[in-house]
Parts: sequence; structure tokens; C-alpha cells
Amino acid sequence: MDYIKKFRVQPGSCVDLEKIDASFKDKHESHQRALPEIDSYAQKLQDLQYLMYAEGKRSLLICLQGRDAAGKDGTINHVLGAMNPQGCTVTSFKVPSKDEAAHDFLWRYHKVAPAQGQVAIFNRSHYEDVLVVRVHDMVPKEVWSKRYEHINNFEKLLHDHGTHILKFYLHIDAEEEMARFKKRIDDPTRHWKISEGDYSERPFWNDYTTAFEEAMSQCSTEHAPWFIIPANHKWFRNLAISRIIVETMEGLNMEFPEPTVDIEEIRKKYHAIVEEELDEA
Amino acid sequence: MDYIKKFRVQPGSCVDLEKIDASFKDKHESHQRALPEIDSYAQKLQDLQYLMYAEGKRSLLICLQGRDAAGKDGTINHVLGAMNPQGCTVTSFKVPSKDEAAHDFLWRYHKVAPAQGQVAIFNRSHYEDVLVVRVHDMVPKEVWSKRYEHINNFEKLLHDHGTHILKFYLHIDAEEEMARFKKRIDDPTRHWKISEGDYSERPFWNDYTTAFEEAMSQCSTEHAPWFIIPANHKWFRNLAISRIIVETMEGLNMEFPEPTVDIEEIRKKYHAIVEEELDEA
Repeated sequence: MDYIKKFRVQPGSCVDLEKIDASFKDKHESHQRALPEIDSYAQKLQDLQYLMYAEGKRSLLICLQGRDAAGKDGTINHVLGAMNPQGCTVTSFKVPSKDEAAHDFLWRYHKVAPAQGQVAIFNRSHYEDVLVVRVHDMVPKEVWSKRYEHINNFEKLLHDHGTHILKFYLHIDAEEEMARFKKRIDDPTRHWKISEGDYSERPFWNDYTTAFEEAMSQCSTEHAPWFIIPANHKWFRNLAISRIIVETMEGLNMEFPEPTVDIEEIRKKYHAIVEEELDEA
Repeated sequence: MDYIKKFRVQPGSCVDLEKIDASFKDKHESHQRALPEIDSYAQKLQDLQYLMYAEGKRSLLICLQGRDAAGKDGTINHVLGAMNPQGCTVTSFKVPSKDEAAHDFLWRYHKVAPAQGQVAIFNRSHYEDVLVVRVHDMVPKEVWSKRYEHINNFEKLLHDHGTHILKFYLHIDAEEEMARFKKRIDDPTRHWKISEGDYSERPFWNDYTTAFEEAMSQCSTEHAPWFIIPANHKWFRNLAISRIIVETMEGLNMEFPEPTVDIEEIRKKYHAIVEEELDEA
């Protein structure tokens, strides 16, 4: 099964989240059985990120969106675990600061866009400005409705600079969300994660669904596709996302840069001596 | 004469710099005679910028472009002289740093776009990336030719956030430029401003003309117009630019925010006592 094809929101299509099974796990019988495959992607991810860093030409932007408890943090831990922090940044976007709110909505995201050779992960992203902002009427419709176009333009700008953009919607259903909240309540080490907001957002479930659907319908493009990842099973979510990132990066045909020195020369000049010394010893 | 109309590049029109008189000075006989008018704009500019700062809703972005010795620094000194530095930033764009070059071309400009209530002046601007970059083949045509659209999108984003954009091309002719270089050579206090580059760019005069013309033709829009300012006379350049800024800002119908306290209450509570004390004394 081609995961990129399977989970990608076809540009121009109309998303209907109800129709997508959040518990999908492909042919995999269990987490245990899928482990070798998950591990193999983690290894590939590490190698590919090293290659991207070395090449220093392209970059990768990964945006993670989803409802509360959908698993954004867990995904980051998994994906990032495989990467060298020197070539990777993570930014979590919270309520805008006073300075951020005094600029256009894309300002704070553009500032932390990945440089060449870098992977940037956005924990929540510029899509918040057509999601929570829309659901809670923080700006008038006239303002947020223009943002889809601004977002597409912004992503095109990054794309033209060699930034590959992958946007993942972590798809859980209402039962799974409530089950995860319950787990938090029952586990004292997770109490710090609980906020009133987790519950006060629940009545807006359908409004969020509509907002997510429109965002993905309007802004899944050839150069910056959205992927809807079944995320009721955390391990499947990690497997699917890693696999899509790996296959996307493999498709970039990256290459190590040519050495700036004559390797043979260096070998002769320095290593021959070492080898002689070793021979003599 | 309506300067905004007179000097604005009509959106969609084709610029021909040869046809524009760089020595134009309207009805003004001399700098001396124009001084009262110049001063009146400086005063108005000060008041309007204070109002923009207080209102804290809109912002102003002024981009200055022109050939060497066209008077960008002089314009900034004049315009800025009238403003409170707390509400105003100036950024001069030089050769991109390594970090800047590793991002898309708009990244470094977006970072310093004005916040609400602020005036930002760009000494050179994002247009450099379709000017010097084009003239000297720093990136392939395929890359720079896409930038006009990115620039228009970027300026639209700022505009939708309440940023008013004014872009000034300081128009001098080849004789005037050489005369200014000569003045620098003859004045030891200006020797530091002379670089080999001043002269080595001269053979590219026509290439720059073409590049400026195309940039202004493609990117003069209703929301972010270009103005071609006759700049052989420095005083007329200052007069025209100040006037256009003043009239644009007046058109914004800015208002001081409502006080957050009851002024009459404050007057009674604190000032009555002071007045009583004064009466008693």
C-alpha cells in the first residue's frame, strides 16, 4: 500500500473526516508485530536527515495539527528521537505574544521556517489561525477567510526555496479523545497535562471538524500536501508518519557534497605516514 | 497638483524611466522658496506618526530604492528627522548573511516588517532580489522571475494586516550620478563613502534601468504602489516624498484611542486638590 497516496488529501478535493476510520492500522496485527518496520523507518530517517544536513540545499517543514490529545507531542518524540538535534528545530505555537499579535499572522511562523539543510517541526502551526481563531470568532470571517490564500502563497514561497512541506492531521475520534482524557485523570504523573480547556473545547467538536476540513480542502496542494493520519493507534500513527517522511526524503535524491579536498592526496600525505609507523611498530 | 497621482506608477502600466524628467521640481523656484512647505510636511509627519503610534492599529512600510548616490540615506535623514525614534525602525539591507541566504529571499524582510503602530523604513528592500541579483545573474532567471509574484503576495499579506506600503524609486539621471560621485572625490569628509563598486556598476546602467522598470511595472499595486520621485534636486525629492507620506497617512483617518480612565473623575479626584492648594497658597 502506498501511504503517500492513501493518506494524502488530493488537491482540490473536499475532506469529510467522518468517512475516515481513525482506527485504521493497515495489515498490521499489533504494535509488537509492526516494531521491526517502525524501527527500520527510524534508522532511515536518521540517515536521510544527516544527508539533508550535509547537502545543505533542501529543507523539510513538518506541521502537526490535531485536536487535544491527538498525539502531537508523542509524534514529535518519536520522529525527533531519530534525528540529530543539530539539524532539527521544534517550535510549539501557543497563544501569540503581544509582539506576535502586532504583526500579520504568518510573521511568527516565517521567522522559524527551516534554513537549507534543516528540518523544522511545527507543533501546531499557521493553521491555528484558521482553526481555533475561526471556531472562537477571534477575528471576523472576512479576515480568516482570506488566510487560506495567504497560507498557500506562503507555502509556495518556501517551496520555491527548496523547502519540502508535509502537513499531518492526527485523526482521532471522539471516543478515543475521551478515553485519553480519562487516562490522564487516572494517572497522577499526567495530571499536569489536564486543563479546563480540554473539556471546554469538547462542545466545539463539530465546529473544529468543519474548520479542519475546510483548511485541508483549501490548502492541500501539490507542493504542500495535507495527510490525514489514522491516530487512534499511536504506534500506527508513528509508523505512517515516519514512512511518509522517509519516502518523501528518499524522493529528493539528495547527494553528499563533493569533498573540498583531494581525498587521495590527503590519504597519501597523512595516512601513509601513519600506516608506515604502524608497519614499523 | 496631486503628487500621489502624478508620481504613482499606475498598476498594470509599463514604466519607461527615460521619459521621466529627473530634474522636475513642479512650480517651486528654489529650495529656499520651498522651505516653508517642506517644514510644514515635517511638522505634519511628526503629528501623524505620533497618532499612528497612539492608535496602535495600522502601520507604515516605506521602501527606498535607487541607484548609487540617488539619495536614499539623505531621504531617510530627512523623513526620520521628523519622527519619534520609538515608533520607527530603519533597516539597511546589505549582502545577505549566511543565515539569511539559507532562507527564502523574503525571510529577512518579513522579520523586520512593522508592528501595529510602527513605521518601518527599508533602505533598499526585497526588491534587491529582482535588481542586483538579476543584473549580475546571481540566481537563474527561472528563480528571480517568480519573485514578482512572491513579492506581490507578501505585500498583500502585510496590507491585509493593516500595513500601508509606499515604495519610492529615487530617480536621478546618469549626469547627476556622476556629478555626485565627483563631489565625493572632491570632499575628504565623503571619501569613506566611495567604493570601487560605485564605478564598476556604471556599465550596468541600462541593465539596472530595465530591472527597475520591470520591478515597478510588475509590482505597483493598489495596495502597495510604487512612486517614481524626480530626485536630481534633493530638496524636491524630500518635499515630494514627505508630502506623499503625509497625504497617505491623513487618508487613514486615524484616531486617538478612547482613554481607559474617566478623565473627569481623574480631574476631580486629583486636580481639584491641587487647585485648592494653589488657591490657599
